[in-house]
Amino acid sequence: MSVSNRTSSAALESRRSPLLVFAGQSNRPLAQAICDNLGVPLGHSTTEKFTNDNIIVHYEESLREGDVFIVQTFSTPVSDSIMELMLMIDAAKSASAGRVTAVIPYYSYARSDKKDSPRISIAGRLVADLLQEAGADRILTMTLHSPQVHGFFKVPVDHLSADLVLSEHFKGCVPNANEGVVLAPDAGSIKRASRIARLLDSGLAMIDKERVSDTEVVPRALIGDVEGKTVFIVDDEISTAGSLVETVNIARSMGARDVYVAVTHGVYTGPAIARIAGLDVTQVASCNTVHVPDSKIREAGGKLAVLDVAPLFASAISNIHTGASVSTLFS
Amino acid sequence: MSVSNRTSSAALESRRSPLLVFAGQSNRPLAQAICDNLGVPLGHSTTEKFTNDNIIVHYEESLREGDVFIVQTFSTPVSDSIMELMLMIDAAKSASAGRVTAVIPYYSYARSDKKDSPRISIAGRLVADLLQEAGADRILTMTLHSPQVHGFFKVPVDHLSADLVLSEHFKGCVPNANEGVVLAPDAGSIKRASRIARLLDSGLAMIDKERVSDTEVVPRALIGDVEGKTVFIVDDEISTAGSLVETVNIARSMGARDVYVAVTHGVYTGPAIARIAGLDVTQVASCNTVHVPDSKIREAGGKLAVLDVAPLFASAISNIHTGASVSTLFS
Amino acid sequence: MSVSNRTSSAALESRRSPLLVFAGQSNRPLAQAICDNLGVPLGHSTTEKFTNDNIIVHYEESLREGDVFIVQTFSTPVSDSIMELMLMIDAAKSASAGRVTAVIPYYSYARSDKKDSPRISIAGRLVADLLQEAGADRILTMTLHSPQVHGFFKVPVDHLSADLVLSEHFKGCVPNANEGVVLAPDAGSIKRASRIARLLDSGLAMIDKERVSDTEVVPRALIGDVEGKTVFIVDDEISTAGSLVETVNIARSMGARDVYVAVTHGVYTGPAIARIAGLDVTQVASCNTVHVPDSKIREAGGKLAVLDVAPLFASAISNIHTGASVSTLFS
Amino acid sequence: MSVSNRTSSAALESRRSPLLVFAGQSNRPLAQAICDNLGVPLGHSTTEKFTNDNIIVHYEESLREGDVFIVQTFSTPVSDSIMELMLMIDAAKSASAGRVTAVIPYYSYARSDKKDSPRISIAGRLVADLLQEAGADRILTMTLHSPQVHGFFKVPVDHLSADLVLSEHFKGCVPNANEGVVLAPDAGSIKRASRIARLLDSGLAMIDKERVSDTEVVPRALIGDVEGKTVFIVDDEISTAGSLVETVNIARSMGARDVYVAVTHGVYTGPAIARIAGLDVTQVASCNTVHVPDSKIREAGGKLAVLDVAPLFASAISNIHTGASVSTLFS
Amino acid sequence: MSVSNRTSSAALESRRSPLLVFAGQSNRPLAQAICDNLGVPLGHSTTEKFTNDNIIVHYEESLREGDVFIVQTFSTPVSDSIMELMLMIDAAKSASAGRVTAVIPYYSYARSDKKDSPRISIAGRLVADLLQEAGADRILTMTLHSPQVHGFFKVPVDHLSADLVLSEHFKGCVPNANEGVVLAPDAGSIKRASRIARLLDSGLAMIDKERVSDTEVVPRALIGDVEGKTVFIVDDEISTAGSLVETVNIARSMGARDVYVAVTHGVYTGPAIARIAGLDVTQVASCNTVHVPDSKIREAGGKLAVLDVAPLFASAISNIHTGASVSTLFS
Amino acid sequence: MSVSNRTSSAALESRRSPLLVFAGQSNRPLAQAICDNLGVPLGHSTTEKFTNDNIIVHYEESLREGDVFIVQTFSTPVSDSIMELMLMIDAAKSASAGRVTAVIPYYSYARSDKKDSPRISIAGRLVADLLQEAGADRILTMTLHSPQVHGFFKVPVDHLSADLVLSEHFKGCVPNANEGVVLAPDAGSIKRASRIARLLDSGLAMIDKERVSDTEVVPRALIGDVEGKTVFIVDDEISTAGSLVETVNIARSMGARDVYVAVTHGVYTGPAIARIAGLDVTQVASCNTVHVPDSKIREAGGKLAVLDVAPLFASAISNIHTGASVSTLFS
Repeated sequence: MSVSNRTSSAALESRRSPLLVFAGQSNRPLAQAICDNLGVPLGHSTTEKFTNDNIIVHYEESLREGDVFIVQTFSTPVSDSIMELMLMIDAAKSASAGRVTAVIPYYSYARSDKKDSPRISIAGRLVADLLQEAGADRILTMTLHSPQVHGFFKVPVDHLSADLVLSEHFKGCVPNANEGVVLAPDAGSIKRASRIARLLDSGLAMIDKERVSDTEVVPRALIGDVEGKTVFIVDDEISTAGSLVETVNIARSMGARDVYVAVTHGVYTGPAIARIAGLDVTQVASCNTVHVPDSKIREAGGKLAVLDVAPLFASAISNIHTGASVSTLFS
Repeated sequence: MSVSNRTSSAALESRRSPLLVFAGQSNRPLAQAICDNLGVPLGHSTTEKFTNDNIIVHYEESLREGDVFIVQTFSTPVSDSIMELMLMIDAAKSASAGRVTAVIPYYSYARSDKKDSPRISIAGRLVADLLQEAGADRILTMTLHSPQVHGFFKVPVDHLSADLVLSEHFKGCVPNANEGVVLAPDAGSIKRASRIARLLDSGLAMIDKERVSDTEVVPRALIGDVEGKTVFIVDDEISTAGSLVETVNIARSMGARDVYVAVTHGVYTGPAIARIAGLDVTQVASCNTVHVPDSKIREAGGKLAVLDVAPLFASAISNIHTGASVSTLFS
Repeated sequence: MSVSNRTSSAALESRRSPLLVFAGQSNRPLAQAICDNLGVPLGHSTTEKFTNDNIIVHYEESLREGDVFIVQTFSTPVSDSIMELMLMIDAAKSASAGRVTAVIPYYSYARSDKKDSPRISIAGRLVADLLQEAGADRILTMTLHSPQVHGFFKVPVDHLSADLVLSEHFKGCVPNANEGVVLAPDAGSIKRASRIARLLDSGLAMIDKERVSDTEVVPRALIGDVEGKTVFIVDDEISTAGSLVETVNIARSMGARDVYVAVTHGVYTGPAIARIAGLDVTQVASCNTVHVPDSKIREAGGKLAVLDVAPLFASAISNIHTGASVSTLFS
Repeated sequence: MSVSNRTSSAALESRRSPLLVFAGQSNRPLAQAICDNLGVPLGHSTTEKFTNDNIIVHYEESLREGDVFIVQTFSTPVSDSIMELMLMIDAAKSASAGRVTAVIPYYSYARSDKKDSPRISIAGRLVADLLQEAGADRILTMTLHSPQVHGFFKVPVDHLSADLVLSEHFKGCVPNANEGVVLAPDAGSIKRASRIARLLDSGLAMIDKERVSDTEVVPRALIGDVEGKTVFIVDDEISTAGSLVETVNIARSMGARDVYVAVTHGVYTGPAIARIAGLDVTQVASCNTVHVPDSKIREAGGKLAVLDVAPLFASAISNIHTGASVSTLFS
Repeated sequence: MSVSNRTSSAALESRRSPLLVFAGQSNRPLAQAICDNLGVPLGHSTTEKFTNDNIIVHYEESLREGDVFIVQTFSTPVSDSIMELMLMIDAAKSASAGRVTAVIPYYSYARSDKKDSPRISIAGRLVADLLQEAGADRILTMTLHSPQVHGFFKVPVDHLSADLVLSEHFKGCVPNANEGVVLAPDAGSIKRASRIARLLDSGLAMIDKERVSDTEVVPRALIGDVEGKTVFIVDDEISTAGSLVETVNIARSMGARDVYVAVTHGVYTGPAIARIAGLDVTQVASCNTVHVPDSKIREAGGKLAVLDVAPLFASAISNIHTGASVSTLFS
Repeated sequence: MSVSNRTSSAALESRRSPLLVFAGQSNRPLAQAICDNLGVPLGHSTTEKFTNDNIIVHYEESLREGDVFIVQTFSTPVSDSIMELMLMIDAAKSASAGRVTAVIPYYSYARSDKKDSPRISIAGRLVADLLQEAGADRILTMTLHSPQVHGFFKVPVDHLSADLVLSEHFKGCVPNANEGVVLAPDAGSIKRASRIARLLDSGLAMIDKERVSDTEVVPRALIGDVEGKTVFIVDDEISTAGSLVETVNIARSMGARDVYVAVTHGVYTGPAIARIAGLDVTQVASCNTVHVPDSKIREAGGKLAVLDVAPLFASAISNIHTGASVSTLFS
């Protein structure tokens, strides 16, 4: 009695065929880029609003038995993005999709990952529960605010890292990156900073901050040494860039020679672009997990760089589809 | 062996005390009016948005063991209203509320109650699942688009009717309402129209419509007789008033003497107010399930009336809290 | 990197093979007819009752990994039919069936779709929950009493319509069907009547009814015009034919020239056949979703016609099995 | 800091008041007897069938926050009994009952407690799942076919035993019961027989049976000694009495002096009463978990005795209601 | 329209390929033997303990889409075995295994299958719930303490029997096994004894026991006749062999000629081996569901035999993997 | 219409009375201390092991409707502690406890809170799921390894902090604590160190570590300045003290004047006590969340201090029981 455990890749591919990629409204350029990398067309679907502001989603092609990936980032307007994604998941399931993977390049509610104060929601967990209730069979995402958010999901999660993208970017910017210092803007980003420092073989420093009221956080000290060095500031995201301005100022006041910034998610809301345009840094880079329109890039006066993670997402989707290991891709 | 089955009302009241009413941002005037009717203060909570457009909700008083009612209507921006409500429910449960009732005067997604076309979501069911996943123990709502939506929920639902409010309103407008005709704008509202007609002891008519494309519906015929009569148009909601204009025009073209309109939910989006201002009707009335700002009332040039359903909601909440029958209230 | 999204139909067929169709006791002739259309044998299973009236179901062939369809209509005795179906679903799942689809041509509890009075069950939702708890992976049914019942299920539902079958039948009965009038017996069937009227390009009328007590409903008026015309009465089902007699009498009293009746589900309980035999109509037609024995057809004196929907169910099953679109079949 | 852990019984009683007892159609005399023992009226509810054989249940009094007990035994017609019970549970929950306990004196599907053959349902577990899905918060039952069935439920179960009732009955029948022998009709009832033998301080014997085909079971041997002795046959239930006749015949052929029979559930279907009337035993006793009409008692010619377990159920309900221990009642 | 229901075995094999077998720490020799029978390698995984005694499990090869079988028996230390199994299941699911089958040769908590006393856990059900919560898709096990435990699981269970192995073993030991007597040590094992007796075509006897306190059980009587006969004692398991010593002594005192013992699960804890070494029996045999180290076999002085059930488990795994019937294997 | 929202504390106390505290075997001294603080007796329960190493738990008093708290820490043997806790929760629920709170002073699996490597379990989430599946209604715990673990639970969690206890302890040790430096042993404890630093108004430093292989982590640098200063090392737990020795050595080599250590959970496994006895520190303090036997305290040669958190747990339990805010206790 001998049972074969060899499976040809062809058999694996056909098991959950066809591969279908759809996108919500929040970041269609990234979805299109992912499809281009995969060599498949972006699926046809429409999203409209009824006159009473309710969203309606409609797939224009059959999903029966398909291996469906829905690309939707959580950028402004976030509530609409989440509702649209849940409606798309639900519609796909009830249209007999074989498996539905929610591809969420920027899972913004991951910032609500603990109870800082009483009587709030751990919204990162709530949204995870809602997505699963809507029918998501698995999740593909990048750079969660804290890696523990992975555990908020019961379905399998593939959690991509931008660390390699960011560190390679820094190496491309500066010849001797290993002589620089990676600076963590606060205690929450020290682990990420430490990983990047190791990839660069560089130094490490951190700003210690203190919350003095519900709305105000002040820096207590810069721990480590940046004087005369190239400083690499890394974080998971930039929103209004208020905290970034402060970090840069402290680095500058402590004698940093030049400053580079790179984050995974460039949200750039409110005064962000204007602040960056006026900031004493060489460059601010972010990935295209959140769409950055050309107008913002122009407005930032040459300081803004966008790093493309579509190939990374395409590889992950391809491996998920064919049952190959995703972890091996990124080591 | 004899077990008492008498329970003093005092004991019942204390079982789930205290009664706590909170409100999201969508219709705080109604929540305040309900609290005024109940004789309790509106609970303190705050809702903010992070710089990345994520909502954060915070209760400013203890909810432990409380009988919590959260008033939130689904009006523009609807996705924010739903997300805020789910965050409030989740936060209340994790803050150890004894029971959480979502009070949703206008459950707008009830319009998505069936599959009109393939590969869409029955969103009314999805939102019901999401609210329950977020932790809602029961629902209190009014005039669902179709009564079957009640069955989308597994938790108990108290479904208030505005029929009595609307018919009493018509009786107050016209002395001999029984000589008039209630006109249903389409087949979907014929049952509601029939009930109002019985309450008024009046006639009944209906417009038969045909969907000629995805976006266009045209009237085929007016079934019944409106000539020379006072016409009462009733529906569950008015959004842009486009369909209302058409209904009024048909009624007018068929010889209606004068026209009164009353609906439960006055959503009034886009050109609605301007259309009503120019409409050949005596009055358009709706309940305050959706907040109508004074500016709109003024803009409508005296044609808009708002009917107060806060006493009805307050009675229902009081009966739910004390374990009295809600059904007996409204017969 | 390019991932194929082409799947040969052969691969699709093998994914959930073999296709297995079983039947409960309620409508084995329809199940056999479906199998004949599909070109597969009806699966072997037995249903017995223990001496204490408990049902026991036994499959006599392996179901491992199979794509199992169980045909069971909800006709008298209904409770036995439901229990047998749930036992068959449970036994199939625990016998490692790959997927189980409950094929319920007549889902009779769909009539309990809302709360007409306090303290009743929305039984249509309860039965949906029970079937899913028993293990049903999907549902295939026809003409639910109201389309919203679709939303009572969380698993995918394919909801077949008999509208085309009924309207084609009318066209075959009467040369100039477009000169006739489709009559809805009450407000609840107006939407169905309107759809048939559009398929026939005919007129539309409706009887307005009033519930005067828990057990008595009286007609208030016929809205629209039937005088001198061929009348097509359509409804979702006929049970005792009591309401049908009334509808025909009203149509006759309003001057209808001749009357045709067609419904999806011919339940024909109690005095139904005798009433139809004596009814002033040309013909009463229904589909074979409920089995009509030859004795009843004879008893009805030539007035009863049975329309075959087995091909429709077979097409739907075939498409579900191979992952083809079901919606495209019926447009 | 000291927290009181004393609670007056008054406080306990009021927590889930009022106590409400309702009954389905299957054994209303027992439900009435339980209520008489409790000193509470039997609640008002109605059960009807629609013309299409669907069951509808209606409570005629408010259940809000009540501690609701629904008495329903699983006797012929069993499927109707189960459906009615589930509809009653569902209606009670959606009518805001505080807690719903299903009181099932005879849980007949407990006989389907394992997989005797492949591709059958373990129906005892399925029905347990269905009752919980319908909303049952707890179960009160008596003499499950095997005690492991208790574990089929996730909600709390109070499982009453009739052992004391049966053994006291035997002691009342025969002065020197300890000189008799308790005879188990098959291996499945040996544990029950052994417990009764210890309560009587009597001997024990068993018939070994063999299944020779799907439908036929033949005795292989009587293990133990009954010659010249009073024999007490005990079992969980009697249906057609076919197996009982065989057991009595074997006992007689082995020299039993006189024979008494007592079981928990007297189902008495088909030829049971006629067989008992002609059986060479002194008496056959069973509890009123299944209703035995007077006609059957007369027909059995004085051989049938019915033992009242209403006081036992009433005590259990009272203790559940007040939060007292149920286990202490029966030791 | 004809849909093929033929599936080549090749297609079936590829559907859930590859077949992957892993093992926890509790019985790796059996896992290796199963793999040898299947012709597949035992999968690579590691289990360690952190310094705080927490278990960590790591798979060292990809499981994506695989048909994963995890072999883990519940032998000392049992809590570690269960925790390790649940961690392996959870890790496999989150590593995107296609299906996870827990292979539990000895499910020891099956002994906790009912409520012998109040306020205990039915642990056999609890562990079943936990395994399913951890993600087990199906269970493969052998000789549950009572067959009803099967029903504690909602996922499919394949329940192997050792009856044939045990009876064949006895036939190999004694030429005229049919002249012997199978002796059940207590009422709980009478059904198993009866089945073995039929396979041997031999006699049957049982010891009736009485629980005199929480910790003490005393024999009341031996029912049946063993004098001058070869006695076959069968049970589901042996732990300390205390009860076995007693059973053998009673058989001896009643005149048994020679005594053979065979059980499914040889747990052999505490003084078991020493007791068996000194026991007046010819042989004690058990299956390798629990690993028996060579040292114990030597210590037992030739009295201990181990029967290999790896081929049985391998056949079952192979049939589950290819979708063939498991029940047909063992009839 | 006015509904009272005042509830006397008496009413609140009686709602879930009585308050019952039980303990598993892992830390009975803490459970007793908590009960002493509460002024209630520790509940009677027994835990035994069957001869096959299976755990059995038995409550020796009624739990009906009680507000049950079960104290169980996750210390060696951890798997037994978790299994015992789950059995106690399950038994309490099936014995009709009104609410069950798992009090887990040291939730050790919280260290497995993310996917450091592929194909492992996020065990902190799995254990959370298992506890909830077993029936836990809420959780009370202290100093989770990362605060995000809170979000692994769907039931309410009260998460106590030892920060105040630790910082007060340091203040008691050293007069001018504000002149010292709090040292985080790695990036993972920097947030905790920063909070303690703020409570002491002291400096902050951190050791940056690098994982060079699966089993080896080496320090890269000490970021910040400790020369000539009193160093306070804080962490969530000490197991073998291997990492502590390294941290102390680095601090010493960088010129620390004297070193104090305080952690929440003193697990002290393997060589821990011997290492501490030989360590160049003034004192190592930990809370009694894990029981430290007197023998270890003696063995550590005066260097070990145990801080009592029983009053903190007692206050939390009291507030949970009476429905008072827990968050207000600890601000």
